[in-house]
Amino acid sequence: MVNIDKKDFSKWFNEVLELAEIVDIRYPVKGMPVYMPYGFALLKKLFDKLEKLLNDNKHHQVLFPLLIGDEEFKKEEQHIHGFSQEVFITADNERKLIIRPTSETAMYPILKLWVKSHSQLPFKIHQTCCVYRNETKSTRPLIRGREVYWNEAHTVHETFEDAKLHHKIAVDIYKRFFDSLLISYIVLVRPDHDKFPGAVYTVAFDAVMPDGKILQIGTVHHLGQNFSKAYDFKILTSDNRMDYPHQLCYGISMRALAALISIHGDEKGLIIPTEFSDTLFVIIPILKNETKELVMNYCEKVRKLLEVYGKVEIDLREKSSGEKHYYWELKGVPFRVEIGKNEVESNKLVVKDRLNHKYSILLDEINYELIAKMKETLDQKIKSNAVKNFSSMIKSAKKVEDFEDLSGLAKAGWCENEKCEQFIREKYHVEVRGYDFNYFENKKLANCIVCNSKGYEYYWGKPY
Amino acid sequence: MVNIDKKDFSKWFNEVLELAEIVDIRYPVKGMPVYMPYGFALLKKLFDKLEKLLNDNKHHQVLFPLLIGDEEFKKEEQHIHGFSQEVFITADNERKLIIRPTSETAMYPILKLWVKSHSQLPFKIHQTCCVYRNETKSTRPLIRGREVYWNEAHTVHETFEDAKLHHKIAVDIYKRFFDSLLISYIVLVRPDHDKFPGAVYTVAFDAVMPDGKILQIGTVHHLGQNFSKAYDFKILTSDNRMDYPHQLCYGISMRALAALISIHGDEKGLIIPTEFSDTLFVIIPILKNETKELVMNYCEKVRKLLEVYGKVEIDLREKSSGEKHYYWELKGVPFRVEIGKNEVESNKLVVKDRLNHKYSILLDEINYELIAKMKETLDQKIKSNAVKNFSSMIKSAKKVEDFEDLSGLAKAGWCENEKCEQFIREKYHVEVRGYDFNYFENKKLANCIVCNSKGYEYYWGKPY
Repeated sequence: MVNIDKKDFSKWFNEVLELAEIVDIRYPVKGMPVYMPYGFALLKKLFDKLEKLLNDNKHHQVLFPLLIGDEEFKKEEQHIHGFSQEVFITADNERKLIIRPTSETAMYPILKLWVKSHSQLPFKIHQTCCVYRNETKSTRPLIRGREVYWNEAHTVHETFEDAKLHHKIAVDIYKRFFDSLLISYIVLVRPDHDKFPGAVYTVAFDAVMPDGKILQIGTVHHLGQNFSKAYDFKILTSDNRMDYPHQLCYGISMRALAALISIHGDEKGLIIPTEFSDTLFVIIPILKNETKELVMNYCEKVRKLLEVYGKVEIDLREKSSGEKHYYWELKGVPFRVEIGKNEVESNKLVVKDRLNHKYSILLDEINYELIAKMKETLDQKIKSNAVKNFSSMIKSAKKVEDFEDLSGLAKAGWCENEKCEQFIREKYHVEVRGYDFNYFENKKLANCIVCNSKGYEYYWGKPY
Repeated sequence: MVNIDKKDFSKWFNEVLELAEIVDIRYPVKGMPVYMPYGFALLKKLFDKLEKLLNDNKHHQVLFPLLIGDEEFKKEEQHIHGFSQEVFITADNERKLIIRPTSETAMYPILKLWVKSHSQLPFKIHQTCCVYRNETKSTRPLIRGREVYWNEAHTVHETFEDAKLHHKIAVDIYKRFFDSLLISYIVLVRPDHDKFPGAVYTVAFDAVMPDGKILQIGTVHHLGQNFSKAYDFKILTSDNRMDYPHQLCYGISMRALAALISIHGDEKGLIIPTEFSDTLFVIIPILKNETKELVMNYCEKVRKLLEVYGKVEIDLREKSSGEKHYYWELKGVPFRVEIGKNEVESNKLVVKDRLNHKYSILLDEINYELIAKMKETLDQKIKSNAVKNFSSMIKSAKKVEDFEDLSGLAKAGWCENEKCEQFIREKYHVEVRGYDFNYFENKKLANCIVCNSKGYEYYWGKPY
């Protein structure tokens, strides 16, 4: 029987990734696991959803090359400062080439050829690809890797305010995405020292992992004119001038999958929201010699009735019924249907959802409303567990000693002086994550927990 | 008005790629164009179809890393010989890393950890990704690039015969894919000197481009035990021995899109089969002040009636109706619907398909059967044009002089001696492409066109 203790989260996470066949970490290049069939199908479901949300908001999907010329890469000063230490480098016969660590420097020399006038704005593109960082820190599958699977969006606007408005829209698109995963998160404005290299401001989505550490799962950056100036990218403005446009970029990586797995999973394995599970129902037939045909016919009938609502699998492997239940629980499949002689005779089926809610249903009762209700019940339970866990992970710190063994996020004042943060970081390995994006332009006042001078309410936590 | 002469195919191809916004070749790294929104949407439609065909045949989608350790890359001798001259190289702190030129050497050290027994066979995986070749030859967008977008499948079988049987199934899957693109092709067994490095035999799909040159658009390789031996990959056989399994690999790249564009397109631009066009109908309203509201209401009504059959766009840009027609013809959209006052008054619509077949339809006549028939009519016309062109491009060569200015494929005997082929290659820039896969095990006899000794019927042509 599968019983993976989630108290030791790090061990739990590695075991679940292995047993549920999400990734294989034995690939011989450090920090580059292989996405196995079950893991890749799940990853793809997540990114299909994200792409659809972006496409529905009139972002156009593109694909830019992996390799970036050294000269293009080096144009934005802060950007090169932020990334140059950790890029992979290659070359052709002519020159040094950078393997993209993110695509601003690949895209923007071309965007300036595509976007010439305010009449084309807002201009919105996105791409799903892998980006590469020659990390020297320790790696962890789906969380800190050297090959990062992600979707990155890039937009162009006429003014700082236009871009700022769309920044909020982008945050809302990401909220819809993470809400669909049924996970909890907080949206924070990062402190200046933790901005994206080249950004005016950075807003990030933080989730709290079961070990109390904070995982950044999405970012939305306002780049202002920093990149358009670096690439000499000008457009015709609505008042007939040539000026540098304002840009945004935002991204979500495979960490979204790490968060989904970690936040929902339990000692039996994965728990997948009904929208993202490849298989919705598994039928486990109890086959005995004398009733085999009867039961199989009934299973096929049930399959036909259920498969209009989602994919149905009949598990015919030569394993015990118990083993099959454990297997599909491990895989996180929403509903398991066990069918034996009794069910056939009473024209019933017994359905267990992944959180062990049991339904006894007459065959005639199966209809759209019932299945929708069952899905909703399971998803709401998954969501409410996540919300409960998340709430329990947010507290207020009154004095610096409260940072000792901090698990989750703590609210505390900060004077915005890096020295005060550094003190906490060195003493408790806790850092400022940012302040609530809901108070973007009127930060809540709170005196600094270190120096007691005037400050604002910030969220603090231990990062991944 | 768009009028791109297809007689100069090379110029036509570049102009269509630019005007229809398929790729942007101005990206500053040679041989790596940018996929623009319209081009990427088309590429994605093609690969979604291919992935679906593979998934339906129980291939499981995975994703292996981009970078391959130098030691793993070097294990299969012929393979390294075939690729080592043209790979991009990078490194981390520890060692040299290869940017994948294809994924055998990334996958097979891991496959041997996944596949242990005959009971897991046939084992079938595939992935869509980009592969990289540091080409020194001249590049051409979608045809010969240094970043190749493709899908590669890899399978494992117990015996040579099992693998050979699945090889034929893989060829059939690819036939279904290319048939859905409505293009014509021939399936050839490549001569030994043109096999995939490390393969026992290679079967390839060749299309004939409008300039008479031959484009390889897909390959299916039987690897025998060459790689399993190189990676010491053994399985438990059905007769309880440990033995090296037999493997296949097969792939289709963005050249499929190049073929679709080149074979179907005309002097007005792209022609896209109805299955792969993002937009199925474009409505072009003729808006005059006094009837504007009337016409717009009617357009919305038509949109509602048509959009159950595919995506409908109403083109409201401030351009002349003529310009709009040219634009959507250039983009290859299957059906254009022009609506003005006359149509509203007569409760009609006039539909033109991309090959200028004109339909005058009463609103009440729109139904599933009619639209299906219209799609079929257009697709059949596209297909029959392709078949006609392809047939006209296949001839028989009786004497070597027939290779002078060869356009398309010529059938001629070959003794299978490389010297005879080299003679033709040097004199006429024509090479042996292979023999018909339908005669795999009983090649048709034909005396060598060069030395007149005993030989077999081969197809010859000028390659890209």
